[in-house]
Amino acid sequence: MNAVIDRLRRTTDTVVGEDDLRERLDSGRPLRIKYGVDCTAPDLHLGHAVNLWMMRQLQDLGHRVVFLLGDLTTRVGDPTGRSETRPVLTPAQIDANAASFLDQVSLVLRTDADVFEVRRNSEWYDVMPVAELLGLFAQVTQAQLMSRDMFRERVAAGREIAVHELVYPVLQGYDSCAMESDLTIVGSDQLFNEQLGRHFQQRLGAPPQVVLTTTITPGIDGRAKQSKSLNNYIGLTDSPRDKFGKLMSIPDSLVEPYARVYTELPLDDVAALGDAASTGGPAARDAKLRLAAAVVTRYHGAGAARTELAAFRRTFTDRAVPEDIPELAVPASVRTVLDLLRAINPSASNSSLRRLISQGAVTVDGIRCQDPAAPVDLTTPTVVRSGPRAWHRVVGEPPRRHR
Amino acid sequence: MNAVIDRLRRTTDTVVGEDDLRERLDSGRPLRIKYGVDCTAPDLHLGHAVNLWMMRQLQDLGHRVVFLLGDLTTRVGDPTGRSETRPVLTPAQIDANAASFLDQVSLVLRTDADVFEVRRNSEWYDVMPVAELLGLFAQVTQAQLMSRDMFRERVAAGREIAVHELVYPVLQGYDSCAMESDLTIVGSDQLFNEQLGRHFQQRLGAPPQVVLTTTITPGIDGRAKQSKSLNNYIGLTDSPRDKFGKLMSIPDSLVEPYARVYTELPLDDVAALGDAASTGGPAARDAKLRLAAAVVTRYHGAGAARTELAAFRRTFTDRAVPEDIPELAVPASVRTVLDLLRAINPSASNSSLRRLISQGAVTVDGIRCQDPAAPVDLTTPTVVRSGPRAWHRVVGEPPRRHR
Repeated sequence: MNAVIDRLRRTTDTVVGEDDLRERLDSGRPLRIKYGVDCTAPDLHLGHAVNLWMMRQLQDLGHRVVFLLGDLTTRVGDPTGRSETRPVLTPAQIDANAASFLDQVSLVLRTDADVFEVRRNSEWYDVMPVAELLGLFAQVTQAQLMSRDMFRERVAAGREIAVHELVYPVLQGYDSCAMESDLTIVGSDQLFNEQLGRHFQQRLGAPPQVVLTTTITPGIDGRAKQSKSLNNYIGLTDSPRDKFGKLMSIPDSLVEPYARVYTELPLDDVAALGDAASTGGPAARDAKLRLAAAVVTRYHGAGAARTELAAFRRTFTDRAVPEDIPELAVPASVRTVLDLLRAINPSASNSSLRRLISQGAVTVDGIRCQDPAAPVDLTTPTVVRSGPRAWHRVVGEPPRRHR
Repeated sequence: MNAVIDRLRRTTDTVVGEDDLRERLDSGRPLRIKYGVDCTAPDLHLGHAVNLWMMRQLQDLGHRVVFLLGDLTTRVGDPTGRSETRPVLTPAQIDANAASFLDQVSLVLRTDADVFEVRRNSEWYDVMPVAELLGLFAQVTQAQLMSRDMFRERVAAGREIAVHELVYPVLQGYDSCAMESDLTIVGSDQLFNEQLGRHFQQRLGAPPQVVLTTTITPGIDGRAKQSKSLNNYIGLTDSPRDKFGKLMSIPDSLVEPYARVYTELPLDDVAALGDAASTGGPAARDAKLRLAAAVVTRYHGAGAARTELAAFRRTFTDRAVPEDIPELAVPASVRTVLDLLRAINPSASNSSLRRLISQGAVTVDGIRCQDPAAPVDLTTPTVVRSGPRAWHRVVGEPPRRHR
């Protein structure tokens, strides 16, 4: 079973209950894997899919994913309108969101009845007497709930916490009891709530679920984690073309972590891609092409990846470039991106050119260049974009000979 | 209606919603008065009865007391055993406590169906979906609940608050909506919870209840408020004799507040009793006799009061005194309690005698004397007790004449 755990570990941040995991995998019994979601409009991205691929790996070994819709908690919403967490949804919206969720999830998970089951937490909360819920509350303290990072941050920021938000982790925790979860794989922001699940399972005499949290990688802008509101994510439902294009736009420094977490490339290859990316220029571009092809292969197959690779090359070396762009011959002394921009805009100040570069407005043969000192190779005609509508086909003049 | 309000004000500390109260009393509509209790074993004392007498006054005007048993909340109890608030009770215990509660309450309130109704909060909580409860939680913030004095004190003392305790005020508050409370009369420690009742009523579009809190008087030891654990209370079910005796034992300084809050003596009489009590000695004793008689009259009728008055005098001047106590003639120079003790115990030190007095071991004609300088009148034989078994019948010698 160590092989299974090792493979999971590639994308695992922390494991709570590793011995239990080992023991349960050894037992041969199909495990119940809790995959809990709230029922707001889903837009799963590569980050979410890390968890899904781990579950898929376990499905392939015969374990069962229990897809748990938190419809009860979603239905409650936030009537005060003061919270920033979740809006109120109608039952119809919840159903529509649930259907969409399943569509997206099925891009990764197997959804055959042997290894997949859909549940809603209203199944138990709709029939739970208030007294029983209060009995759960009696097993947790206010201080325990307030120790959650999110709450502490809110308090520190002077923002309010409504009481239904405060008790949300109790509900999410009890879900693990009700559905007899053996294991759950979540983002680290869910660790607190799922540990409450262990707490309740132990209190109620059930074996506590194992909690795996996954590595979180930054969004395609290299900064915060992927999120819809920052528009820095790669959606599972993005077309192969969009996935490919977004991956080509990531900072060089993300090639290695993305390849490790979002592909199944051998780890040696991952390291090599990281090394190549760190040298910048065409080597980095080629590393990104390989990464993008691997991700597209994973979701859409090798054929789609080949198509996108070809399309990308065509677009960014020929077609996407306007027909009638001016040609420009530049002296052989142009060695760097900054030299190149200076040759194109002789009247602009150095600082404005550097700003243009650092802002990401400059691409060389379709590759964004944000380092002014990065070397450029002008031995063949090179398409340079130095602003929204500023295109040039640049050719390096051969070095002058002394007469 | 001002007369009604003025009469209520005699024992009122704060009024939340005084204009509403005036308006509703003016409307002529019978008001619903919430009298909520938890179902732990009851032992109502004079302090609780202050609220009951205010309700009784309103019953006599045609308003209805809704006696609300918090059976749901009592049933939950505290399975963690870490709280100091309430133990878990069985349904049978709850029923027994409820019956005992009603017995005690009926010593003050009218219990005829026109003006009295018994409800249990399980009526609404047993059929409330969890989602609806969470909807209530959404209307309150964690900070609001934690602002309650009791919780702040617990946190300051490093003690834990279980979550069912934290949300208890929400349940108590919602009770006011469910039972359509117009008015509630509570101890000031309940003000927070009942204000949440107003909050929910307003949120749910109902007229908010008026909240009256009552003046709290100290226990018979003159210190903390009456409580069973301190054994410093006068129970409603105490016999007329016990009530009378306990009232005779209170510090002089409590005669005025007790007479104001625990009797319906005219306020001028209350002031006069207070003045008499402040002079100490026989005048204070007589003031206490009048107070004790008024309280016993209120609960047991004038006949019982006369009986107790006679019994008290008999006991503490004749009968309770052992048959064969020594007589002692003391010189006319004995003027104070300390003089008297010195005459009885010529070999004891002044400081030990003072200590005996201050500890309350000394009674003169059945009245405890704690002031060494209090005057004593020895013109008639006087029974002095200067310790558990130290009795003397003391007679003052006539002043010696010079020969």
